[in-house]
Amino acid sequence: MEIQQWREFLIPYEQAVQELVIKFQNIIREYTSLGQYSPIEQVNGRVKKISSILEKVDKKNMELSDVEERIEDIAGVRIICQFVEDIGTVVDLIRGRQDMEIIAEINYVAHKKASGYRSYHIIVKYPVQTVFGRRIVKAEIQIRTLAMNFWATIEHSLRYKYQGGLPQDVQDRLQKAAEAAYHIDREMSSIRSEIIDAQEAFKEKSNL
Amino acid sequence: MEIQQWREFLIPYEQAVQELVIKFQNIIREYTSLGQYSPIEQVNGRVKKISSILEKVDKKNMELSDVEERIEDIAGVRIICQFVEDIGTVVDLIRGRQDMEIIAEINYVAHKKASGYRSYHIIVKYPVQTVFGRRIVKAEIQIRTLAMNFWATIEHSLRYKYQGGLPQDVQDRLQKAAEAAYHIDREMSSIRSEIIDAQEAFKEKSNL
Amino acid sequence: MEIQQWREFLIPYEQAVQELVIKFQNIIREYTSLGQYSPIEQVNGRVKKISSILEKVDKKNMELSDVEERIEDIAGVRIICQFVEDIGTVVDLIRGRQDMEIIAEINYVAHKKASGYRSYHIIVKYPVQTVFGRRIVKAEIQIRTLAMNFWATIEHSLRYKYQGGLPQDVQDRLQKAAEAAYHIDREMSSIRSEIIDAQEAFKEKSNL
Amino acid sequence: MEIQQWREFLIPYEQAVQELVIKFQNIIREYTSLGQYSPIEQVNGRVKKISSILEKVDKKNMELSDVEERIEDIAGVRIICQFVEDIGTVVDLIRGRQDMEIIAEINYVAHKKASGYRSYHIIVKYPVQTVFGRRIVKAEIQIRTLAMNFWATIEHSLRYKYQGGLPQDVQDRLQKAAEAAYHIDREMSSIRSEIIDAQEAFKEKSNL
Repeated sequence: MEIQQWREFLIPYEQAVQELVIKFQNIIREYTSLGQYSPIEQVNGRVKKISSILEKVDKKNMELSDVEERIEDIAGVRIICQFVEDIGTVVDLIRGRQDMEIIAEINYVAHKKASGYRSYHIIVKYPVQTVFGRRIVKAEIQIRTLAMNFWATIEHSLRYKYQGGLPQDVQDRLQKAAEAAYHIDREMSSIRSEIIDAQEAFKEKSNL
Repeated sequence: MEIQQWREFLIPYEQAVQELVIKFQNIIREYTSLGQYSPIEQVNGRVKKISSILEKVDKKNMELSDVEERIEDIAGVRIICQFVEDIGTVVDLIRGRQDMEIIAEINYVAHKKASGYRSYHIIVKYPVQTVFGRRIVKAEIQIRTLAMNFWATIEHSLRYKYQGGLPQDVQDRLQKAAEAAYHIDREMSSIRSEIIDAQEAFKEKSNL
Repeated sequence: MEIQQWREFLIPYEQAVQELVIKFQNIIREYTSLGQYSPIEQVNGRVKKISSILEKVDKKNMELSDVEERIEDIAGVRIICQFVEDIGTVVDLIRGRQDMEIIAEINYVAHKKASGYRSYHIIVKYPVQTVFGRRIVKAEIQIRTLAMNFWATIEHSLRYKYQGGLPQDVQDRLQKAAEAAYHIDREMSSIRSEIIDAQEAFKEKSNL
Repeated sequence: MEIQQWREFLIPYEQAVQELVIKFQNIIREYTSLGQYSPIEQVNGRVKKISSILEKVDKKNMELSDVEERIEDIAGVRIICQFVEDIGTVVDLIRGRQDMEIIAEINYVAHKKASGYRSYHIIVKYPVQTVFGRRIVKAEIQIRTLAMNFWATIEHSLRYKYQGGLPQDVQDRLQKAAEAAYHIDREMSSIRSEIIDAQEAFKEKSNL
């Protein structure tokens, strides 16, 4: 495909990302204007670069005609939460929506990748209206805590810079850092629930 | 209703406006990246102010409970075109979409208002997904040329500033200005089609 | 220059456009939050495309090294006003600013171009801070009414589509349309000042 | 002060935040278009809410007339970096700019707060141009890593929700979490520099 054809191919994916980002950002606005805690802290989106798509085609030994079917993260949305428990709340919100259809869920929070990576991935089918009619595209929604995002951002950055592959000892240290980050995540959650518990105990007492 | 209740009431309308604006702006991007002329020049949106809603409630002697049903422009989107003919193209694009349902069309281009106002209005039902489930809201889409928009912006501005009502002679002069603006619009269109005709005549000749 | 070098060359111009657009849009916000009429209706900006720069280089027979000095509209900002008188107000606002330095003013409102084009152009020097230090770039600010903008947008669009040059009779008709648009502009202004006059006369009477 | 007066008071701060955010985001764009690693990962900004300003006035027992002089974070910008070393690079970039004047630097990275909080704070004077002339406002720029930001976001959220004050044992646990987060930060940096060292060693060898 020529550059121009790629650009046309990516148009519906760009639309999908823009619409999905707006929609998830509106969840934050909704909770905020109701004066409630939002399980979503931040939303970002991006369309995969042509060069990255081609790399994946190469690596997976695909036909170009399979790109649409087999590369599921051409449209990518990232949802960042404060606490680990918020991830579940967000997953439920997405399951309850009628404007996208979930085709897969991969729970890398409970079952981390070998690298140490944690996130909850949902693949959806999302309809966009183009000038030539309705098109249904796939999009990958990644849901993760601030700590998981911190680790993933740095790991990505290291992997990107040192393309030859990370030496084994660096990989080991990254894995340990991932565990340490996850440990803080759970510690933060337990502080949170401990305070909630304490407040409820107090309320009960004062109701006696 | 209290301010806070109004804010909550307006949330789905704000979402609708944001999504619709993004969607119509993407039509411009689509045509542009295909290297084609876009029938849409510009897209804006706004949610009606609470004070304006209350004014309308008062003027039309409505119950507050009728607001949702009877005020159709709480969510408003404005699409600006270069040429009068583009309006029809945009109307057809909207008619062909599956993500909104047209419930009314009012052709103030062919049948101007007494004030001289021209625009094509489409009222749609548009589904938004809130934290509490799916909500269907009404939105008004106004489609007009740059010249119609120029006139309407100034007329609105005059009407707003001189709230007591415009004196009859000013109204007459505004009507004439509207006609003059529409005359330029048709002149611009005829120049456009004349050039297209001339080019086609030339092509035919050179094909002899 | 290679594409990459052009991209680097254009970075400070992109910064300048972004900053200038934000700054002029803030003038609208300032008037609006003071509950006052804003002399600015709308602000847009764009950086000249590389292909358009090269065309100009070609047409003017320049050296590439002269681009920065001689092409003054690489960074371009457009300010749209409702009424002709607003143009003067905006010019004064720009003259009073200390964050940009005016190096030229061209009054195409009073002295229209042969084509019929009207706008007020101000060329400024504007400092941007890059990673490599402070850079001063030129930017062209075009100030025009909605009606002037309507005409200019359509004329640009016609000129662009029919690149061989517009036939003389089309040019004549465009010129007439420009005059008609300007006539409406002055008519709109006179309605406005007439209402203001009428209101002041009324106030005086009631003060007797 | 009435709400309306507060709104007017905050206008130049809103301008400052918007301009500063655009300017720091442009640093990311600059590095990216040069194909280089950006020491800035993300930029956010906000104007302090009126209610928070009043709380601070109350707590510090200030006169309202002292707000402008004594509250230095009415305009707030947050710069997020990947690695601890990037903070220094960003500080140097700010020190080198001519469009803002540094009036204070507080190094909470080297010298954490009692709570465990880490960030580098820079207070600047920044000139904005209003309709009524030039105004110089103060702004606080916070520079921190993703990990410091993760911790600070959650701590803020806990503090906000449990307003009565955090119990001592929760404070202790938050402090430990802050230390753990900082430990990961340094670990990540050491992995980074280790890889760089390894690559340089390799280059030297291959140059023999």
